[in-house]
Amino acid sequence: MRKTLLAAALAATCFCAHAAQTTIPQQALDLAAGLRERALADTTAWKVTESLTTEIGPRLAGSEADARAVAWAEAKFRELGFDRVWTEPVTFPKWERRGESAAVLGANAQPLAVTALGGSPGGTVEGEIVRFADLAALEAAPEGSLAGKIAFVDYRMEAARDGSGYGPGGAVRSRGPSAAIRKGAIGFLMRSAGTDSHRVPHTGITHFDDGLQPVPSAALSIPDADQLARLAARGPVKVRLALDCGWDGSYTSQNVIGEITGRSRPEEVVLLGAHLDSWDLGTGAVDDAAGIGITMAAARLLKQMPMRPARSIRVVAYANEEQGLLGGRAYAEAHGADAALHILAAESDFGAGRVYAFNTGAPEHARQATAQIAQALAPLGIEYQPDQGGPGPDIIPLAAKGVTWAWLAQDGSDYFHLHHTADDTLDKIDPQALAQNVAAWAVFAWLAAEAEGDFGSRPRTAEAPKD
Amino acid sequence: MRKTLLAAALAATCFCAHAAQTTIPQQALDLAAGLRERALADTTAWKVTESLTTEIGPRLAGSEADARAVAWAEAKFRELGFDRVWTEPVTFPKWERRGESAAVLGANAQPLAVTALGGSPGGTVEGEIVRFADLAALEAAPEGSLAGKIAFVDYRMEAARDGSGYGPGGAVRSRGPSAAIRKGAIGFLMRSAGTDSHRVPHTGITHFDDGLQPVPSAALSIPDADQLARLAARGPVKVRLALDCGWDGSYTSQNVIGEITGRSRPEEVVLLGAHLDSWDLGTGAVDDAAGIGITMAAARLLKQMPMRPARSIRVVAYANEEQGLLGGRAYAEAHGADAALHILAAESDFGAGRVYAFNTGAPEHARQATAQIAQALAPLGIEYQPDQGGPGPDIIPLAAKGVTWAWLAQDGSDYFHLHHTADDTLDKIDPQALAQNVAAWAVFAWLAAEAEGDFGSRPRTAEAPKD
Repeated sequence: MRKTLLAAALAATCFCAHAAQTTIPQQALDLAAGLRERALADTTAWKVTESLTTEIGPRLAGSEADARAVAWAEAKFRELGFDRVWTEPVTFPKWERRGESAAVLGANAQPLAVTALGGSPGGTVEGEIVRFADLAALEAAPEGSLAGKIAFVDYRMEAARDGSGYGPGGAVRSRGPSAAIRKGAIGFLMRSAGTDSHRVPHTGITHFDDGLQPVPSAALSIPDADQLARLAARGPVKVRLALDCGWDGSYTSQNVIGEITGRSRPEEVVLLGAHLDSWDLGTGAVDDAAGIGITMAAARLLKQMPMRPARSIRVVAYANEEQGLLGGRAYAEAHGADAALHILAAESDFGAGRVYAFNTGAPEHARQATAQIAQALAPLGIEYQPDQGGPGPDIIPLAAKGVTWAWLAQDGSDYFHLHHTADDTLDKIDPQALAQNVAAWAVFAWLAAEAEGDFGSRPRTAEAPKD
Repeated sequence: MRKTLLAAALAATCFCAHAAQTTIPQQALDLAAGLRERALADTTAWKVTESLTTEIGPRLAGSEADARAVAWAEAKFRELGFDRVWTEPVTFPKWERRGESAAVLGANAQPLAVTALGGSPGGTVEGEIVRFADLAALEAAPEGSLAGKIAFVDYRMEAARDGSGYGPGGAVRSRGPSAAIRKGAIGFLMRSAGTDSHRVPHTGITHFDDGLQPVPSAALSIPDADQLARLAARGPVKVRLALDCGWDGSYTSQNVIGEITGRSRPEEVVLLGAHLDSWDLGTGAVDDAAGIGITMAAARLLKQMPMRPARSIRVVAYANEEQGLLGGRAYAEAHGADAALHILAAESDFGAGRVYAFNTGAPEHARQATAQIAQALAPLGIEYQPDQGGPGPDIIPLAAKGVTWAWLAQDGSDYFHLHHTADDTLDKIDPQALAQNVAAWAVFAWLAAEAEGDFGSRPRTAEAPKD
């Protein structure tokens, strides 16, 4: 998951107050080349990713596997030689999936492959479907026109290297159910926000606006959406949607944090994040065991440098990113006051494709240092893209507290083939691409930790609303 | 599904008794070129395939959808202008799938994507798995060594254009459960006989040898087999396999037959077959709605020729191929005495990939005619491969009665990505490749119907066992 709106807002913010130019010392730059080569040959990220996906498997926030994943992460940080390992609590409502099915009824009776959207209530509804080409068409439907009906939003998400198709695709999931309820619908179906052609529907969190009575809401696999659209083109289609799922109390998980202590400014940290939870359908390999593997492996390599990094390298394995950045919010609440001590923060949460671009949200005085890091990343095929990018999802709340983000853009051309589906499994990860990620993260973290000067992180006071 | 052993045996049989050379008249060859071009531009096969997969969907033999498919086929033959349409009963035991799940238990608890093998009994078993690299390893296990255990045969099937990897892959499914029972196993799991990388396990019929007590038997998806193998490499793994399925009485379906009446030898037929049933997981698009579409469309084009074909063109939509060629056997029983009237018989049942090779099982006196047909197919990128090929599955019983087969080999490179899975859906079919198939079948059927002389079909008397 990626957000770009806040990113743009943050990038535009002026931090230009009288700071000296930040630069990267030549010695650090000289050491980066060797680090890069060692990282490319390192298999730690693969082993970590393999371990998490194999031993824990799917790890839905709040599930039994969530607790196992936390214990796994603590043990893995220690095994990899992190100096400090600790946890911080993250409490959230617990959502469970117990069963789900759907079927066309009547003369063309046949099952449909569906999965409940996260946050959906359970329940069985039967009704005629009304197909909409996109969210705008649903939102434009007359009031009450869906009474007794099931809305079907058939928007086809486009694949893109930067994942930009997820904006409109994800909006159907997050805003579609509430829009359908407002028109009177008794249920909500959508073409999965995905780009594959398999019978693996894409789940993901949805949200019901205040004051609305939630209805069973689910995603069809891409071929099932095709099928339902073909049937709908022939005439009225009645569907049964049966979901057994819902919210059930609250749960306290943990952000699991491992730190390599800095040699000269240990209280300042470069934060490398990824999220430990996954959806329950797959084993969360590209979302986001790969990120856990990449960040753990990158930090570990820094401990093995001829000299430790000047600043501390903090890896945060966030709890429950999937249901609303709960781990990221908790971390920001706990550490927001220390924004200035977080020199840069980044999250690896866009799969396991190669990194192709780099930037930070730093103000003018650290633009040269950002360019220096980018230059050190260039041999990895990474381009400096000033004025592009933004924070990874769990960094958004921290960035809102004033911490400057870094952006290591991954090739997400096939990310939405797998995202939030049963198909998100280890076999989809290319070990070479994973190692390229480790090299990028290690070099970035090393140089950020060695920088003379800051990247503009400052505690931000709450601003009054503009309007 | 394809069989080659019988094919080889039949090809080797000598039909060389004093027959005149069969040839294709020049006028028929001249007309073939136009037919080929019209077929390449014809969309009937696509429309028929779309109709069957959309309106009927999955059509497991004996299910409610089986009856709908029979009615659909009768109506479609009439709609397409076939001169005669009739049905012939096919009775078989009915197998049902009601539910299925599997999970790793214990410290690495996680669900596994499985599907019951056709013919499996229901039941829930829990036990440690014992992994075998292939069927031979299972068969070599000591007697009693699997008492209380679940056998896991982890054989990885290879993709090939001619589908040859399915020989050993399919053998695991057909012979593995009985081998496991003989060693004392309480359950059977296999890596799907498939070549994809998705969470869509491959079903297919299995068989329990006489005298054995059947045990729950299922296939894991390819990524799940990878996962179970990784876990097994770490130490003992306990699995629960819960299947709700089994045999339930008998059912009478129908072979649905449509015929274009020949202009001069109407009692002689060229038989074009495909099967109407499918497995229940997908909509049976490549297996075998495509075959139904190809054969119906090819025959329809022949009715539109400047002159009707000399012989009749008979399209047989076979019932229940999937569970043991039941429709093919019933047809052979009903029509075996008329073997000599079946000039050639072929089945399209290997997906929707382009046809790349042609041959017949004809004896020497029809070799030239076979080569003439192949020559007319050459512009479609089809190669004459004498001494290769064999009958499609439902033709095997008819070939055993003495009918000569024809072989239109399809490119099956990706057939086993989809075969018997939920992913076998319409979107996987390339309309251009489908049209190339129609062109090949139309030209073949036309020339076979126009041939002067026969292709060696003769009633075969039952032979005494050789040993």
